[in-house]
Amino acid sequence: MKINYPDGRIFNSQPSKSSLHTTNAKKKLIFGDRGMTLEEEINESNKYYRAHDIAVIYKKPTPIQIVKVDYPKRSKAVIREAYFRQASTTDYNGVYNGYYVDFEAKETKNKNTFPLKNFHQHQIDHLKMCQKQGGICFVIIKYVELKRYFVMPADEIFIHWDAQFDGAKSIQLKDIEKGSIEIKADYNPTLPYINAVQQLIESGKEKK
Amino acid sequence: MKINYPDGRIFNSQPSKSSLHTTNAKKKLIFGDRGMTLEEEINESNKYYRAHDIAVIYKKPTPIQIVKVDYPKRSKAVIREAYFRQASTTDYNGVYNGYYVDFEAKETKNKNTFPLKNFHQHQIDHLKMCQKQGGICFVIIKYVELKRYFVMPADEIFIHWDAQFDGAKSIQLKDIEKGSIEIKADYNPTLPYINAVQQLIESGKEKK
Repeated sequence: MKINYPDGRIFNSQPSKSSLHTTNAKKKLIFGDRGMTLEEEINESNKYYRAHDIAVIYKKPTPIQIVKVDYPKRSKAVIREAYFRQASTTDYNGVYNGYYVDFEAKETKNKNTFPLKNFHQHQIDHLKMCQKQGGICFVIIKYVELKRYFVMPADEIFIHWDAQFDGAKSIQLKDIEKGSIEIKADYNPTLPYINAVQQLIESGKEKK
Repeated sequence: MKINYPDGRIFNSQPSKSSLHTTNAKKKLIFGDRGMTLEEEINESNKYYRAHDIAVIYKKPTPIQIVKVDYPKRSKAVIREAYFRQASTTDYNGVYNGYYVDFEAKETKNKNTFPLKNFHQHQIDHLKMCQKQGGICFVIIKYVELKRYFVMPADEIFIHWDAQFDGAKSIQLKDIEKGSIEIKADYNPTLPYINAVQQLIESGKEKK
């Protein structure tokens, strides 16, 4: 199977805050998905899904508060002072087969517990609002060291999030295994998470 | 009817490129929707729709290519060199009552023709892809001088866009009137475009 890496994708993809420090990001990508961040894996998968008319899902650009812009003559505008802003939403959304899809992606180097501090209140609130509107809402969790990936439905996330008020600080791997759909990294797409989305849609229909 | 302007909305909303030049943006907002840009009107409406559990729709942040970031000690990161990037998508998307909603907003000071150069190929392509996935896709057009607003379904836009190959440079107001749903500026929400979205959904069901 041919792995088709479109040219210039680094310049087409919004750099994450973390990738700003990564001088060898391009090199890493050339050698395939090993060492790719979860964000890169999802972006690759989304390109595949768009190219094959399966889904139209994008990562939202990082919100920036722009303070100062120079407009040099005969040259494009240069932002000279700007700050990272807190997002109001999750990072990813789009449309799959008539369904609104909304999710956040989180990775951990832990081998068991997944710390709840990876989530922010605004992300939980946003997922709740989107779910109320009939969206398919979830989180993709990557255990970097274990090379395991889980699609955890928003309802499960909410249960663990609320458990913080009883003192919980993290989710145990066994609870993630129980409450999620595990997906395997692959080629074309790198991370076939839409299969899990389809399962979520079907299980939602069964409930009704 | 009480007009509830939430505090600090200027700092909560992503500044558009054009608003960077607008030093009196805050003042303008205080005096209501007169003089608001279409973007401001839609952002206000989206806040209303979210606050009332009607729809969860956001403007996407402007995509920025970040080149240089300073990390001062005991202070937040400062972006020192960055550039505006071409977006791959439209500006607005979200979920309404189970439907994926995707649109672009355009305003003109013309009193009749709406120039097609207001659209970009990537926006047309994106609307086509989202429509194929079952999304509700359209453009909100504002005639600034006429104070008239139209929700034009993507299918109509595509027809006029393709007419460029026969030499068309713009859409006539009479064709916009014929092919769109006109909406009126109001309070709460400032621009009740979801009513038009509901009509598009219902007319789509009739076709099936």
